[in-house]
Amino acid sequence: MTTRIAHADLRSRIMTAEEAAALIGAGTTVGLSGFTGSGYPKAVPLALAARIEAEHAAGHPFRVRVWTGASTGPELDGALARADGIEFRLPYNSDPIAREKINRGEMDYFDMHLSQVAPMAWQGFLGPLDTAVIEVTGIRADGSLIPSSSVGNNKTWLDRASQVILEVNRWQNPALEGMHDIYYGTRLPPHRVPIPLTRADDRIGEPYLRCDPDRIVAIVETDSPDRNLPFTPPDDTARAIAGHLLEFLRHEVAKGRLPASLLPIQSGVGNIANAVLTGLIDSPFDGMTAYTEVIQDGMLDLLDAGKLRMASATAFSLSPDAAARLNADMARYRDRMILRPQEISNHPELIRRLGCLAMNGMIEADLYGNVNSTHIMGSRIQNGIGGSGDFARNAYVSIFMTPSTAKGGRISSIVPQASHVDHIAQDVQVIVTEQGLADLRGLSPKQRARAIIDNCAHPDYRPMLADYFARARAGSYGQQSPSLLTESLSWHQRFIETGTMRA
Amino acid sequence: MTTRIAHADLRSRIMTAEEAAALIGAGTTVGLSGFTGSGYPKAVPLALAARIEAEHAAGHPFRVRVWTGASTGPELDGALARADGIEFRLPYNSDPIAREKINRGEMDYFDMHLSQVAPMAWQGFLGPLDTAVIEVTGIRADGSLIPSSSVGNNKTWLDRASQVILEVNRWQNPALEGMHDIYYGTRLPPHRVPIPLTRADDRIGEPYLRCDPDRIVAIVETDSPDRNLPFTPPDDTARAIAGHLLEFLRHEVAKGRLPASLLPIQSGVGNIANAVLTGLIDSPFDGMTAYTEVIQDGMLDLLDAGKLRMASATAFSLSPDAAARLNADMARYRDRMILRPQEISNHPELIRRLGCLAMNGMIEADLYGNVNSTHIMGSRIQNGIGGSGDFARNAYVSIFMTPSTAKGGRISSIVPQASHVDHIAQDVQVIVTEQGLADLRGLSPKQRARAIIDNCAHPDYRPMLADYFARARAGSYGQQSPSLLTESLSWHQRFIETGTMRA
Repeated sequence: MTTRIAHADLRSRIMTAEEAAALIGAGTTVGLSGFTGSGYPKAVPLALAARIEAEHAAGHPFRVRVWTGASTGPELDGALARADGIEFRLPYNSDPIAREKINRGEMDYFDMHLSQVAPMAWQGFLGPLDTAVIEVTGIRADGSLIPSSSVGNNKTWLDRASQVILEVNRWQNPALEGMHDIYYGTRLPPHRVPIPLTRADDRIGEPYLRCDPDRIVAIVETDSPDRNLPFTPPDDTARAIAGHLLEFLRHEVAKGRLPASLLPIQSGVGNIANAVLTGLIDSPFDGMTAYTEVIQDGMLDLLDAGKLRMASATAFSLSPDAAARLNADMARYRDRMILRPQEISNHPELIRRLGCLAMNGMIEADLYGNVNSTHIMGSRIQNGIGGSGDFARNAYVSIFMTPSTAKGGRISSIVPQASHVDHIAQDVQVIVTEQGLADLRGLSPKQRARAIIDNCAHPDYRPMLADYFARARAGSYGQQSPSLLTESLSWHQRFIETGTMRA
Repeated sequence: MTTRIAHADLRSRIMTAEEAAALIGAGTTVGLSGFTGSGYPKAVPLALAARIEAEHAAGHPFRVRVWTGASTGPELDGALARADGIEFRLPYNSDPIAREKINRGEMDYFDMHLSQVAPMAWQGFLGPLDTAVIEVTGIRADGSLIPSSSVGNNKTWLDRASQVILEVNRWQNPALEGMHDIYYGTRLPPHRVPIPLTRADDRIGEPYLRCDPDRIVAIVETDSPDRNLPFTPPDDTARAIAGHLLEFLRHEVAKGRLPASLLPIQSGVGNIANAVLTGLIDSPFDGMTAYTEVIQDGMLDLLDAGKLRMASATAFSLSPDAAARLNADMARYRDRMILRPQEISNHPELIRRLGCLAMNGMIEADLYGNVNSTHIMGSRIQNGIGGSGDFARNAYVSIFMTPSTAKGGRISSIVPQASHVDHIAQDVQVIVTEQGLADLRGLSPKQRARAIIDNCAHPDYRPMLADYFARARAGSYGQQSPSLLTESLSWHQRFIETGTMRA
């Protein structure tokens, strides 16, 4: 039962999750593993949440500051948020209970570029990290750690934390060993040097996480699956978006602007992203690579089809079926996958050098191509910016995709003015909806507006957008990016008041 | 008189500016030298403008697409815009005549991240480059070119253009030879490699520009000064801003979060930037370096004071007095200055690696720290984003500075919602006005709002902002970044309607 812990001394620090959670103090900062529902600790946060509830019941305040890689699972964000145990959260959240707390103003949330979490933690202004709680696949005889199904910020949390709690999760496949590439060459300036990675499949580090055994105060053994959500097959809208995008990629290859094997793919998660990846199976592109944040179902399919040569990421984000497929054949997949720290998977230097094709979802875009990825109606956070800024700013081609409407047509994804901006027009080169694709590269704002209205807007909203644009062309204060300030956010206000953006 | 042209064959291609301008066709794309009023061609554009005016008078359409490094001078942007000769402009403009044309909707303008101009020109979607018009200091016997007072995109224009016109400007100091560092290692992916620069003073290239003599179709000799604008001494507001910023830097050094020699400085131009640089003369920081876009008056002062060890940039932006000082002592300054292509001076990889302290001006910031650098009242372009995005996103600390009001107090620089966003909150870590400094690092949006209102807003507008924020806290759709959509842009609308943002 303890064969996953090969370091003899450390076996003495095995304890229950409750005992481990008792080591975490109120008001302290906890850095946990976890990225897109993979590799997060599953027992200690639950026990901590129970402890917090008990303290609250006894009239004692108890909240902590929670840092992770990105999103986690219901046993972490969900349980701690439900217990009202999170005072401050970074860098990303997709948990519905935590989201509600945030949007009611009950929890402070700093959503960050995912590449910047580790360097900013080192920079010092975020304050000290008291405890790291990290899920691992196993502990080797020399004390080094076999990482789990995500890497995220684990290296940084282990390096920075005053005390370390490990969860050794027997559910994770021991054949994960050797898949990871942990780069130990990052420094603070003035000591930074070039990161020696020039291909998506380069290995520049080591397969294990280092951790001083003296700082390990608790080890908890678990046997719990990652939060793997069922796969939703692409619908007609997603397939139409994928079709437009694949046509664009074929066109760019034909023009000689992209190699026939494309450039390293970055893909978000979800229905549309999977439709694109599925579409690539039947594409003429061979020998592709992925340099991305997460490996999702569609990436496995592309690997199986022999179209994708390899995939580099920081985490898995799989359905239960795909996770089972991966686990059944891990040793084979392992040679064609690399999981890295998120400061490397998302590093601007590397994304720019490799020339990634960045494909991300969004909430809305405006006439000029400014993109809102995070705030519904400008104020209500959905998830967070995540890695989209790291990739969009530095990509070879930065592509944003969305259905042209949401909520059964009551929301237009193309609006006069974005109610919040995460990606400025300069970082948005292609917009795709099921209606079509707007190639915005090299266009002025007014040229962009025409391309977006004509190609991307839903027919129900196209006349409203054309009318707004025509009146802004006539009445705007300036004509670089024409706008009517009394109207530019009125569609959002109408939705809030009436439940639809339709006039 | 021709000693600046040491290549014998090329002397036969000396001609008048009018003859050279006749080689540029209507509807073609012209890539010109020039960055912040330095090193732009001064004769051929004027002759081209005269030719365009004559063609227009004869009823013939004649416009060109104009690419540069950044801003130029009245003999280039001013003359061509006045002649209505510019169909499309990239990547930056600060000429008042061109600005008016743009804001009347008569000229298409694509304002770009300055680091991305060269790679995007290579990517191909901007179309072919027909003619390069480049100012140089001299031509060597082997045909290599001694660059002028700016480098900008000259390397790329020379490499890409079908034909090349050179202006050899006798006004430029021959002692500029040896100051430049032209890196020839950039490639398109998948052939990109790490850029081997780890210190601001590293030289990684060669001092000359290469150009195939066969593509040089004309050489024009000139003797004209750069557009050097008189220096405006810092006023009380600028000095107050500088004071707050220097106090912050001292505090960061004291906390151990910055080295005592700071990290490489990036500084914009203008009154406030010069006040900061002047303030650094009396600071405790020694052995500083600059890794920046332009070398302005204050940088010379810092070099003279022995506080700045060296400065790396892509251009000069000097007053006539400072230009005279530089020219009188060029050989000495030359060893402590490096001018590089703007794709290197502004490269995200290098800015992130070096950990620049980025200090840029802005038009306005909103409660959450989103910054507008370009669009007055959201629609009227002032200049362009320039390099501010390259630096702000990748800086070690990204600082934005502005007086708290403009137009005699009728405009507040702190507004409920930015009317246009160039720098998202994640890329804005410190905001400084003469009222004070808001350190926004690691804060949630609502925490940022309180810091900005309390520290940066002008007292005349502080109660209005606090009132708006309180009501948004009560009535917003979501509470991550509270907003009232019917009011958030009303200050700008009020200014347009009444001439003041005051209620």
